[in-house]
Amino acid sequence: MFGKVLVANRGEIAVRIIRALREMNITSVAVYSEADRNAMHAELADEAVCIGPAKTLDSYANPIAILSAAMVTGCEAIHPGYGFLSERSDFAALCEDVGISFIGPSSYHIRSMGNKHNARVTMIEAGVPVIPGSDDLVLDIEEARQVAERIGYPLMIKAADGGGGKGMRRVDVPEELEDKFMQAQAETQAIYGNQHLYIEQIIQSAKHIEVQLLGDTHGNVIHLGERDCSLQRNNQKVIEFAPALSLAPETREGICKAAVRAAKAIEYTNAGTIEFLVDQAGNYYFMEMNTRLQVEHPVTEMITGVDLVQEQIRIASGEALSYRQEDIQFSGFAIECRLNAENPRANFMPSSGHINRCIMPAGGLGLRVETAAYSEYELPPFYDSMIGKIITHHDQREGAFQMMKRALYEVVVEGLETNVDLLDALIGNETVFADAFDTRWLESQFMPAWNAMLEAEEG
Amino acid sequence: MFGKVLVANRGEIAVRIIRALREMNITSVAVYSEADRNAMHAELADEAVCIGPAKTLDSYANPIAILSAAMVTGCEAIHPGYGFLSERSDFAALCEDVGISFIGPSSYHIRSMGNKHNARVTMIEAGVPVIPGSDDLVLDIEEARQVAERIGYPLMIKAADGGGGKGMRRVDVPEELEDKFMQAQAETQAIYGNQHLYIEQIIQSAKHIEVQLLGDTHGNVIHLGERDCSLQRNNQKVIEFAPALSLAPETREGICKAAVRAAKAIEYTNAGTIEFLVDQAGNYYFMEMNTRLQVEHPVTEMITGVDLVQEQIRIASGEALSYRQEDIQFSGFAIECRLNAENPRANFMPSSGHINRCIMPAGGLGLRVETAAYSEYELPPFYDSMIGKIITHHDQREGAFQMMKRALYEVVVEGLETNVDLLDALIGNETVFADAFDTRWLESQFMPAWNAMLEAEEG
Repeated sequence: MFGKVLVANRGEIAVRIIRALREMNITSVAVYSEADRNAMHAELADEAVCIGPAKTLDSYANPIAILSAAMVTGCEAIHPGYGFLSERSDFAALCEDVGISFIGPSSYHIRSMGNKHNARVTMIEAGVPVIPGSDDLVLDIEEARQVAERIGYPLMIKAADGGGGKGMRRVDVPEELEDKFMQAQAETQAIYGNQHLYIEQIIQSAKHIEVQLLGDTHGNVIHLGERDCSLQRNNQKVIEFAPALSLAPETREGICKAAVRAAKAIEYTNAGTIEFLVDQAGNYYFMEMNTRLQVEHPVTEMITGVDLVQEQIRIASGEALSYRQEDIQFSGFAIECRLNAENPRANFMPSSGHINRCIMPAGGLGLRVETAAYSEYELPPFYDSMIGKIITHHDQREGAFQMMKRALYEVVVEGLETNVDLLDALIGNETVFADAFDTRWLESQFMPAWNAMLEAEEG
Repeated sequence: MFGKVLVANRGEIAVRIIRALREMNITSVAVYSEADRNAMHAELADEAVCIGPAKTLDSYANPIAILSAAMVTGCEAIHPGYGFLSERSDFAALCEDVGISFIGPSSYHIRSMGNKHNARVTMIEAGVPVIPGSDDLVLDIEEARQVAERIGYPLMIKAADGGGGKGMRRVDVPEELEDKFMQAQAETQAIYGNQHLYIEQIIQSAKHIEVQLLGDTHGNVIHLGERDCSLQRNNQKVIEFAPALSLAPETREGICKAAVRAAKAIEYTNAGTIEFLVDQAGNYYFMEMNTRLQVEHPVTEMITGVDLVQEQIRIASGEALSYRQEDIQFSGFAIECRLNAENPRANFMPSSGHINRCIMPAGGLGLRVETAAYSEYELPPFYDSMIGKIITHHDQREGAFQMMKRALYEVVVEGLETNVDLLDALIGNETVFADAFDTRWLESQFMPAWNAMLEAEEG
């Protein structure tokens, strides 16, 4: 096992990892930017190194600064958390080159799953259903027309190297196809220096369901069940659930087995998540693979009792998985609410600055809070607006909701705007409790009603 | 189910109960003394009523003040928590008289178990082993000599109505018996107005093991396993564990079944605990019954998943138990540390006043903190010095210890003295981890070594 590990992140996830390291008797090294001198993660770690200015590219997303800090402090491994360098295959490769363990999959896996077209082809080969679309890259408008005829409209043109909507075009009717295809081709050429496009059907009224995987370096892969992350705004998850109530048992089993099959096919190691779209008929389609720990990992931990961060560290050190598939027992219902410093009344503008008083909910059976905020903390404006995750777990779904309502009621974050009212409205919403929402519901149904309510209040 | 409940307590347990009420959609009414205007429980409840001056007898332990507050606010029930009025049968009887539900057992059960001799006789009738001693009250020195001859020395003379050491005398050799008996008789006469004494053997090298019980008004009684509360200083529990590692399976089963048998025999309702002494041979002896929720109830909640406070409320409202005995599954290991505002370096003198910064550990899988303290809170000097309970739960005993070590490391309570160093030393102690301690170990073995270490540090 490692003696010393660097945590290449900040905020709640850095704190989460430092705590796991301490529980494993491993010395932790935090890194912090100049804006994070008073950050909790820098305080809690055994050692802390300043790695540069506030700007992300100069500090937390600077591979050389991080790697230097690891080497200077004698760390044997680096945990990247999520975001920042966690899905940078070049960083993982650098770690491999200098003999520092990257606590995550190999650089090969990060790169190969990072290319969306490549991931799609890999899944097809592993027998995992993918969204109907082009089997190969679509090189010209003629090929695009053939694919479109086969799969129908609406469809999405996507860049193989894409991410974050870049190079993407939605096409609703045949008349739009040529224009949109040309636009996508030009954009992809400009951004990625190639014209690698592919086409996918648009799945209507779907659920975002993802499967948590763990693989070790001895060829073992297990799943830890699925999460429902369909409550999204602006492609950001807002509230997550485990298990996914809407899935029929055979659909759940099919998805989880498909995910394990895919991970085994590519000899995946460490923690990873395969995201699926599931339509109302229960058909499921591979969307993408996240080759890292995810923000919402606690809901899986709560229903399985598996500490995913500790398991990641053990895997990276070469240990075999602590659990066989049959050891994993699922128990109860878990919910995670992401508490963001943002103003839902002003287009969700991020809020930063001095927190006069920060009292997070605590206590009771099944409540968990992950945060790096505290009273008198100065929240810097440079990073993610998420200031805490509130997680509840109960043997009844209703109990998990009731505890979450109670927890949200208790949140005190004086001095900043937060989305706690939005979270509270969602947790109290009947459609949410009935699990009758798809990935579009929050934006297309809930938000207009919520905004109208706010306007009425103000008027 | 009740619509509105008054919480007749303060501190972490009042907060715990208010949270349970909120999760059950029941309106909560807090009561607070003049010293507790800024207390968290008064803030968190739906309503709050000031019931008098700081002094306990004028507020939290004043039956009339509490009952008036309940009637004025229209409460249908009162939860007494622990301490204060929780074991006052006269208060429970008053509640019964005015038709307000007392969330606990009947006044009859409180009174009958509050009389130690009576409880002992009741247990003998129910076939529960009691500490060898007198079967009846011991009325004169001749009877005392006969009992002593039968059970041997050392022995303890106790007052039937006693509590908190009052009227108690330890007798190590026959020569001491007459003097000690006369002293006890005089003291009992002075305090209780009678000479009701009984005699018990002193069990050497014993464990304090207690069984959590729940009984409803429909005749159902279940146990929720046992706790090991042998780590005590000055008759105060310091750290508690569930389950009790030292018990052989047949001993555990015997104790738990005996406790259920006793509770059924007396038709006990609501939450209660039967305390046993267990000697090294696995013999167990009834010590006393606590007719209330206990401070250490969370360790039982963690290993069973049962919310004891919610269950108490349901029982008091007339509902049947939510669980049958066979529904109760035990899972993993739980530890509770009592964080006290006191100075272990100055004979554990209580510490009170302004808390500049209060950051309790949080996060991770299996950590729970119950507290009513927060940054800038003014801890009043009038009450219990316990400012928080830190509870960890893990499927391995070692994991629960590691998480507790990590949690204690994180505790920040600036401005007050706390016992966190003592807790940390105990959690890191090999005898504690090996569960090789009895009820005397902390005071007779650990504290001298700890004090010597402190002196060496200072010197």
